[in-house]
Amino acid sequence: MSEDAVSEDRYWKSSVSEITGDSVVIRGYRLDDLIGSSFTAATYLLIRGELPTAGQARVLDAILTAVLDYALEKPGTVAARFVVSSNPSMQAGLAAAALAAGEYSLAPEATARFTTRVYEQYVASASNDMRAFARTIVEDLRSRKERIPGLGHPVFKQIDPRAQVLRKIAVDEGVWSDAATLYEAIHAEFTSLPGKADIPINDVGMMALLCVSLGFTPEEATALAVIGTLPGVVAHISEELSSGRRIRVLQAKDVDYDVPRRELGSSEHSS
Amino acid sequence: MSEDAVSEDRYWKSSVSEITGDSVVIRGYRLDDLIGSSFTAATYLLIRGELPTAGQARVLDAILTAVLDYALEKPGTVAARFVVSSNPSMQAGLAAAALAAGEYSLAPEATARFTTRVYEQYVASASNDMRAFARTIVEDLRSRKERIPGLGHPVFKQIDPRAQVLRKIAVDEGVWSDAATLYEAIHAEFTSLPGKADIPINDVGMMALLCVSLGFTPEEATALAVIGTLPGVVAHISEELSSGRRIRVLQAKDVDYDVPRRELGSSEHSS
Amino acid sequence: MSEDAVSEDRYWKSSVSEITGDSVVIRGYRLDDLIGSSFTAATYLLIRGELPTAGQARVLDAILTAVLDYALEKPGTVAARFVVSSNPSMQAGLAAAALAAGEYSLAPEATARFTTRVYEQYVASASNDMRAFARTIVEDLRSRKERIPGLGHPVFKQIDPRAQVLRKIAVDEGVWSDAATLYEAIHAEFTSLPGKADIPINDVGMMALLCVSLGFTPEEATALAVIGTLPGVVAHISEELSSGRRIRVLQAKDVDYDVPRRELGSSEHSS
Amino acid sequence: MSEDAVSEDRYWKSSVSEITGDSVVIRGYRLDDLIGSSFTAATYLLIRGELPTAGQARVLDAILTAVLDYALEKPGTVAARFVVSSNPSMQAGLAAAALAAGEYSLAPEATARFTTRVYEQYVASASNDMRAFARTIVEDLRSRKERIPGLGHPVFKQIDPRAQVLRKIAVDEGVWSDAATLYEAIHAEFTSLPGKADIPINDVGMMALLCVSLGFTPEEATALAVIGTLPGVVAHISEELSSGRRIRVLQAKDVDYDVPRRELGSSEHSS
Repeated sequence: MSEDAVSEDRYWKSSVSEITGDSVVIRGYRLDDLIGSSFTAATYLLIRGELPTAGQARVLDAILTAVLDYALEKPGTVAARFVVSSNPSMQAGLAAAALAAGEYSLAPEATARFTTRVYEQYVASASNDMRAFARTIVEDLRSRKERIPGLGHPVFKQIDPRAQVLRKIAVDEGVWSDAATLYEAIHAEFTSLPGKADIPINDVGMMALLCVSLGFTPEEATALAVIGTLPGVVAHISEELSSGRRIRVLQAKDVDYDVPRRELGSSEHSS
Repeated sequence: MSEDAVSEDRYWKSSVSEITGDSVVIRGYRLDDLIGSSFTAATYLLIRGELPTAGQARVLDAILTAVLDYALEKPGTVAARFVVSSNPSMQAGLAAAALAAGEYSLAPEATARFTTRVYEQYVASASNDMRAFARTIVEDLRSRKERIPGLGHPVFKQIDPRAQVLRKIAVDEGVWSDAATLYEAIHAEFTSLPGKADIPINDVGMMALLCVSLGFTPEEATALAVIGTLPGVVAHISEELSSGRRIRVLQAKDVDYDVPRRELGSSEHSS
Repeated sequence: MSEDAVSEDRYWKSSVSEITGDSVVIRGYRLDDLIGSSFTAATYLLIRGELPTAGQARVLDAILTAVLDYALEKPGTVAARFVVSSNPSMQAGLAAAALAAGEYSLAPEATARFTTRVYEQYVASASNDMRAFARTIVEDLRSRKERIPGLGHPVFKQIDPRAQVLRKIAVDEGVWSDAATLYEAIHAEFTSLPGKADIPINDVGMMALLCVSLGFTPEEATALAVIGTLPGVVAHISEELSSGRRIRVLQAKDVDYDVPRRELGSSEHSS
Repeated sequence: MSEDAVSEDRYWKSSVSEITGDSVVIRGYRLDDLIGSSFTAATYLLIRGELPTAGQARVLDAILTAVLDYALEKPGTVAARFVVSSNPSMQAGLAAAALAAGEYSLAPEATARFTTRVYEQYVASASNDMRAFARTIVEDLRSRKERIPGLGHPVFKQIDPRAQVLRKIAVDEGVWSDAATLYEAIHAEFTSLPGKADIPINDVGMMALLCVSLGFTPEEATALAVIGTLPGVVAHISEELSSGRRIRVLQAKDVDYDVPRRELGSSEHSS
């Protein structure tokens, strides 16, 4: 904290870092002392405000490596390659990739928000029967025709192996929250419904459970998914920049164009 | 349409434009014929697929000029100036400004979506008493503690003069939809509630009603708000690039820093 | 200007707009009075600081409509579609499209900068023989093996018809600067070289000459190209959002993957 | 590599990763096996194509932790906070921060490019007197009035302590290239000039030397600087999202507005 008493009404407040005469203090530690420590530990420190235990750092590594790359079948990667094929700027490509994280991919936010919310309800209910509580949640969702985020995968049935690796690391390191257990209970109730037996928790869903267990907010869960995917994006951008091609297009053979042919008549044109 | 019959199963489809041997056909018209026509008419053509009438073009001009600039009190403008103070790239600044349009400003999307939805309900209800229908909508929202988007302004009470200018243009040009009338009926019912009498339809709300009246989707309404604000952003970026300053900061006098001081102990560091 | 004398040393300065008690003053005019005027005129006002003459507005319309859309062969359009296929956000898509403007497409910046620079040299030289001056410029560029920006097109030889439409509008409206004439003289000298006869000024090059003639900076020329392309991007994003597809990929049939298969050995892994 | 022989002329090529029936192969390794390894090692693997040695991983950690945060005096951080104060989207904030990396901050690209280029010249020269070669480089730059990137700091004179920490880690781990040694020789020659004695290699300059020593391209160096700064950006975005404020502005007290007051006359308005 600054030496002098600060007024209460300054427009901005921050507890992340502060510039001092000869260094930068990051969440309490001098930057000079942090340089060279593991980037994963530094990531935890910056966002959570404390250095992680070894177990917490390992779980964060698992989160950050959960979705490293997905070839040219990840929209953000492809968007980045198109962008740099016209504007050969690394930053522009990285920004485009980050912007592609969202509702349909790479955003554990929805699952994290759901898990946090139902766990708060569970605690508030003072119930001591998690399974019964999970059943009411599933029934309630069904009655409102809402889906449970974080479930299902086009390829994997019953078990998503990547999700299981993530789960095992969290349990082994003692980082598995009651909120995550509740989500699994809800999943168990859901899969006991007719026709739902083979719907697993998917990797992004499990990533969300680990983020919640470490105390990250839903938005921070999405940020970690984005950061985890950026090294792959860098690799693809480098590949594109050195490809010798410029101005990538969608090849005409892959597009159905259905554009009419018309003539500008003097009567119809407003300009 | 292309001469040859196209297969039905190409991965991409588009009806916006098509490249021909010697030109580009835009929504049916040759680009060469469109060059030099009003950009507003071209904007309507691209998005709606048809050239506008003179009245439709005037209403679109009103939408595009509704929020031209707001000094350094628009977050996207300020974000753009910070970005180019470090990375002097016009494109990067424009992108940052576009990204600041959202839930809390510059996004008529919510009002447009609300208006479209309640109007569909109204049509489906086959009611012929719009006022009664509006009352049930207001009561329903109140019971669910949901707010009506597009209402209220920190300065203007009862009437937002900019919104009234927008409304007058649309009415004068015969571009005022039943959906917009329904929204006004809902607003009228709302302001008849105790303590709500002086809450006007604000400018972004009215912009949304004009967009709906012209047939734009909610997302397109947001796009038009973004496009309308970009010339001002360009002006601010130019001002910043020629300011002689680099690496803008938030001045220390405006920030309360509250960062602890700690020592790295060997026991606590996981890396 | 504010009533009170302002200190000279405030950190920020701006002449674009100012919020007053009951309106916003945009380059001197009340926003309420501007709403409903042509967006093209407003664009000129915001960036240049003055309302345009009818001729200047027409030339700006020509600039803004010069490259309206280019099917799925414009990288920014494709990037935007990939982004919204995963993150269905209009703003994110628009930002991605803006970021794709750059060195290899949609950036008249280089030509505008070149034209401005050589014209300043010409004025400073006090030469009255533009043709001779142009010859020295071409010779100098050739000796340094530098290319002239704004020339050449993969399809059009000798004449780019879109560029000619742009040029005609500017000349007709009396908006054709000496700087643009100098660029043409340089082009004429260049095409008199062996093997260069059929290299035309392309559309982006001509757009740059019109921007320079209207007094826009090189960065502003790029901004105008970006704004001009956004309505088409909006149309493509809407098409994508309503396509029913999510998470677009590059189809496997279009990609050569060349990825080795290896085993993690305990000895080689550093983590 | 795919089982079947791939044609040579597919439009896209990639060696980063490939989706197989039951996993994703990342630079040769199954994703399932990589999950839980250090993110720093995974970053190296993705970009460089090989797993790092322990020393290489430690140097990459140093690069990624070199500029972790810089309070509210880093333009990208501030831009991100403004963006999310209006559009509360983590992705949008991250993209804005990435876009602020550039010419004036957070871009080791220029130094990396310079170092790579002069080292190539040195090798091509077949000189065995690095000091003499460095002197000719410095003389050449001075004669062309070009500056050496990566030098100088507003606060630190002679020594930038953060840069020295970075250098020590690289030397200790045996990751210090001849190209980096050449850059230091150039720096030594430069500081022997009159009045230049106290100009140190700054932290971003040293980060660039470590990136070059590990084999990263200049663009990749910028990417690593961006990735290294993102955890801090996440922390600031979280702080902003939980601040209770919306629509951040630049406070009027910090801005000199100089906007004229004018009336719209019928004669001057083109629209």
